[in-house]
Amino acid sequence: MSGRLYALGTGPGASDLITVRAARLLGQLDVLFAPAGRKGGDSLALSIVREYLGAHTEIRCCHFPMSADSAEKQQAWDTVCAQITEQVQAGKQVGFITLGDAMLFSTWVFLLARLGNPPWLEIVPGVTSFAAIAARSAMPLCMEQQSMAVVACTAGDEAIVRALRDNECVVLMKVYGRFAAIKARLRELGLLEHALMMSEATLPGEQCWRDLASLADDTPLAYFSTIVVNKSWSAAQ
Amino acid sequence: MSGRLYALGTGPGASDLITVRAARLLGQLDVLFAPAGRKGGDSLALSIVREYLGAHTEIRCCHFPMSADSAEKQQAWDTVCAQITEQVQAGKQVGFITLGDAMLFSTWVFLLARLGNPPWLEIVPGVTSFAAIAARSAMPLCMEQQSMAVVACTAGDEAIVRALRDNECVVLMKVYGRFAAIKARLRELGLLEHALMMSEATLPGEQCWRDLASLADDTPLAYFSTIVVNKSWSAAQ
Ligand SMILES: C[S@@+](CC[C@H](N)C(=O)[O-])C[C@H]1O[C@@H](n2cnc3c(N)ncnc32)[C@H](O)[C@@H]1O
Ligand SMILES: C[S@@+](CC[C@H](N)C(=O)[O-])C[C@H]1O[C@@H](n2cnc3c(N)ncnc32)[C@H](O)[C@@H]1O
Repeated sequence: MSGRLYALGTGPGASDLITVRAARLLGQLDVLFAPAGRKGGDSLALSIVREYLGAHTEIRCCHFPMSADSAEKQQAWDTVCAQITEQVQAGKQVGFITLGDAMLFSTWVFLLARLGNPPWLEIVPGVTSFAAIAARSAMPLCMEQQSMAVVACTAGDEAIVRALRDNECVVLMKVYGRFAAIKARLRELGLLEHALMMSEATLPGEQCWRDLASLADDTPLAYFSTIVVNKSWSAAQ
Repeated sequence: MSGRLYALGTGPGASDLITVRAARLLGQLDVLFAPAGRKGGDSLALSIVREYLGAHTEIRCCHFPMSADSAEKQQAWDTVCAQITEQVQAGKQVGFITLGDAMLFSTWVFLLARLGNPPWLEIVPGVTSFAAIAARSAMPLCMEQQSMAVVACTAGDEAIVRALRDNECVVLMKVYGRFAAIKARLRELGLLEHALMMSEATLPGEQCWRDLASLADDTPLAYFSTIVVNKSWSAAQ
């Protein structure tokens, strides 16, 4: 069997929201590369896929420094890239997992930029966090002539305000640490009653806030928190 | 067992790109409501899920008129809504399928608007067409401080130009019948080499065009065709 690399989107959190294809491929892997969690522990992506792994699959956690030193980061990516290529060339079935969908706000893309698009690569898409949030909250994304923007709250005020002004639906990712500022913007734009926030969607700790106006600015938030705005829908139930 | 309604995203086309959860639920359904295909035949969503259905599942194809007569459309939705509610009240396990994700440009939302969010409803998210196209083409969506817009080509010129101007990544859905106009806009904005088009992604008839500049304006296109633009990536592979 010749070596292959599978970049697998794991879906948003619940392990049965992975695709049938990814579940099957996970059972055939020789080696799984998993980005390490933020707090040194297992990553959420790894906890999602554990039940599907073959008994013999070797798990390698890769650490990617959050440091601003870009040489250090480049180095970390180059190393993982070399390790993966080596395994594939040795004929192994190799996996790399990413939370949600693999091509959306995902570290996998740093690897892809290094690897190019070799014939031994297969990318398997996954359910995004915002699709899961829309489903769990019964708040739709967009319809017909509407548009949707997906923006990280790290993008800066101007980009966020523009997205909120110009689109019927806006997904605000990476709310963690930025809730107060985003809430103020939503209030100014009169959008608070069209916005809801969800943390850890589809996981045991899932929380949904439909009344952001009365949610304290300093409410402790889980790292995985996202706001969805839909101007033609009310966030209240 | 009390009655339940499952709104199930089927994913973009390949039947193993459905979620493990949706596959399992499909096997337990008493009745499946499936929007009828455009040409009177089975819908793509129905062909995706057939292999997962239980032997006893009754399939009901629902026709939604494309007519501009909105009273006629309302009537069709009201009827399906009443039929579904009746089945749930009779204690049945009922499914309603939609291609890709259920909450994104999906007719399911017309039903949701009528049903509200009753306790017997569960919406199961699916892989969107654009996640599948990004995966198949190895062209990422967005990263870090970037934003992504998802727009239908029916949205009108102004909205499309604005989306293309203001976002790093733009997904243009419903290209069918509008390719020439969109191509002209992409050319004016200097974006042709950052754009690719995919038809029937993950299906046997999948096609990917990476050189839109030299693709004839009147190229016959499949109904399921989407353009993805990423300003920081080259479409040529
Ligand atoms: C690095 S991005 C990963 C996005 C992922 N690739 C996707 O397809 O959704 C991390 C951000 O995704 C969002 N997110 C991921 N999983 C989530 C979940 N289960 N509930 C709420 N938000 C989630 C949060 O906004 C978080 O800051
Ligand atoms: C009514 S919308 C449905 C969108 C769907 N709910 C989703 O999550 O992607 C139909 C449009 O989706 C896109 N589409 C759906 N499936 C596709 C596929 N397999 N390949 C390419 N485009 C697809 C096309 O742009 C098509 O015009």
